[in-house]
Order: sequence, then C-alpha cells, then structure tokens
Amino acid sequence: MNNIEALDKLVGVFRSLPGVGIKTAQRYAYKIINSDNQYAEDFAESILNAKKQVKYCKECGNFTDKEICDICLKRKPKIICVVKEPKDVFAMEKVKDFDGVYHVLHGTINPLENIGPNDIKIKELLARIQKNKTEEVIMATNPDVEGEATAMYIAKLLKPFGVKVTRIAQGVSIGSELEYADEITLSKALEARTEID
Amino acid sequence: MNNIEALDKLVGVFRSLPGVGIKTAQRYAYKIINSDNQYAEDFAESILNAKKQVKYCKECGNFTDKEICDICLKRKPKIICVVKEPKDVFAMEKVKDFDGVYHVLHGTINPLENIGPNDIKIKELLARIQKNKTEEVIMATNPDVEGEATAMYIAKLLKPFGVKVTRIAQGVSIGSELEYADEITLSKALEARTEID
Repeated sequence: MNNIEALDKLVGVFRSLPGVGIKTAQRYAYKIINSDNQYAEDFAESILNAKKQVKYCKECGNFTDKEICDICLKRKPKIICVVKEPKDVFAMEKVKDFDGVYHVLHGTINPLENIGPNDIKIKELLARIQKNKTEEVIMATNPDVEGEATAMYIAKLLKPFGVKVTRIAQGVSIGSELEYADEITLSKALEARTEID
Repeated sequence: MNNIEALDKLVGVFRSLPGVGIKTAQRYAYKIINSDNQYAEDFAESILNAKKQVKYCKECGNFTDKEICDICLKRKPKIICVVKEPKDVFAMEKVKDFDGVYHVLHGTINPLENIGPNDIKIKELLARIQKNKTEEVIMATNPDVEGEATAMYIAKLLKPFGVKVTRIAQGVSIGSELEYADEITLSKALEARTEID
C-alpha cells in the first residue's frame, strides 16, 4: 500500500483486529509512527505482558492473572451465572448486588460453525456443580438463537442433578422506546408479563 | 476495569489510538488474549519494527524506510504537490497520472492550537524550490479553514520566487448528490463554474 514493508506489515496486523478496515488500520499505524519511541515500546510491551500474564481461571474460565480469579476466591459457588465469554462477566459485574460466581463457556453451541457441546466448557460446568453444593444455575448466554439453544441444552443436561436452572428475563430494555423494539422482543415481553400489585 | 493489571494496561494502550473508546479497546485486547502467542509476538514486533524502520524522507517529509523516498528518487521535482500529512500522499497517489513529487508540511497553520508557520515544514519547501527548478507548486492542503489559510500563506510567500502556485479545485464531489452538498461547497462550485463547449 505504502510500499514500505514495515509500515504495510503494521497496517496488516492492525487490520486483523475485529472490525478494523484499511483506513482505520492506517490511522492506527500512523499514530504509532508519529509518536515517540517510548510509546511504541510501551505498546509492544503491553501486548506481550498481557498475553503472558492473562490466563483463564481454572475454576470459572474468566480472565485472571492468578490460578483462580478474584471472584472465585472471594465468593461461594451457590449460584453460578453461565455466560458465553469473559467480556460478559465484565458486563454482569456492573450489576452490583449479584454475589454468585460465573462460568464462562467460551462459546455457544452453533451447528453452522461446527461448534458442538464438547467444544465449549460444559463438562467443566457439570464438574463444578457436582463438586460444589450449587443451588442455582443462571443461564445468561446472549438472547440470540445460539444463546437460547445453549441455555436449553444445558438446562436439560442439568435436570438429573436436581439443581435449579433459570434464564435471565427477556423483554423491553429499560429506557428504550417501544416504537423501536423488534417484534420478537415485544412478543417475549408480552408473554412474560407480570401482574402489578 | 477487569482488575487484572496487565489486561487493563493493554486496554489502556489501545484506547490511546485515535477514535478508540473503552468497548473497542476491550475487544482489541480480548483478541490479543484469545489468539496464540505467535500472534501477540508478531503484533508487538510489527510495532517496534515499523517505529524503527519508518522515518521521514529527507527531501519531502513523506514516510520511507530509506533516506530518500521512492517518489523523490524516481520523479523530477518540477511540480511539487504540497500536502498536510503523509496519509494525504497516499490519497493523492491514487490519481495515477500525477507524476510530480510531494512536500509534506506535517501540519497546517492553526493559531488556535498555537501552530505557526515555523512549526510546519515551510522553510524546507522554500529550500527545495530554490534548489530545484520547480515550475509549479500545487497546494493540496485540506479544504478547511486551516488548509485554506496555509495555502494562501504559502502562495504569498512564494510570489517573489516566480514559481506558479495553484490550488486544487473545490466543488461538488463526483458521484455525490447536490441535495447533500453544503452551502459553502455549492457556493464554491458556482463561483468556479466553467463553460461547456
């Protein structure tokens, strides 16, 4: 592109980031070139450090820089909230009063992409439930086809263990406008309507 | 954010890239963590390599990995196209039949941000014009306030040298719709109208 190999290579690696096109990759590369050496060194070091130090919690599969993550260390596994990815733990943690632990599946069942139940961390979830006295498993996978299917699959699988399996509620988002809600969301919101006392 | 220092640090450096917010930075960081070691090492190396190898052409100020860039080596400086940034050279080069050279100002005059004529590469442009037998200087700075002011400033400065100074035409973009053109663009397009033979 620029006929400068090192620059083209850098644009290339930036393009490999999710959602980054050629123009954005160029802007990122120019930012590196136009900054001082210290900036480039810090940038490179942060990448290597994060890759080296960040691993998955042996218990729940979330990101951690220890063997077991802070959440697993501090909280009891009475309630396990099952999510698709580590970033979902980050989202759920914004709900300040949830004091259960998490289980990161690292994917959802997706036949179209050849991801079956054995490709995600379902075995590990079963092991945790058997090991601990888990009372409830909250399925907090995404409200899309794969997330639903995975939630249903796991719920069925857990039935023999006598553990309560719940699904996060689906309905209209707080602060949104009905006008812009899609029909499936509205249908779910109607179906799951609750009585006002 | 994630309470993992190395991960937060990585999210931080990604946020320092232009136009990157917290969510995007997290997605980039997760991509690094979720890829293999080789990917992270290549990424870090590309940054350091680009920073080390890419420098500014001593002649025109464009990016290069040599002393003098390919364009300056191959073409004669009869026509010099003056641009604000190296990425503008890349844009102009898409016009295949331009065979002049470039001069990168590395900024435009901007009193609000304390950037005066001495802060950008105007002296270097004067030196090039005096050294070479330059016939024309095309001012291709952006069609905004700073770009206009810089073009006017340089045009005035070059007058005593007897070199022809031109400005890229301003008008409606090819393929655009009049409906969406702003009034200043339309006014310029009217003003600079040409006769149809």
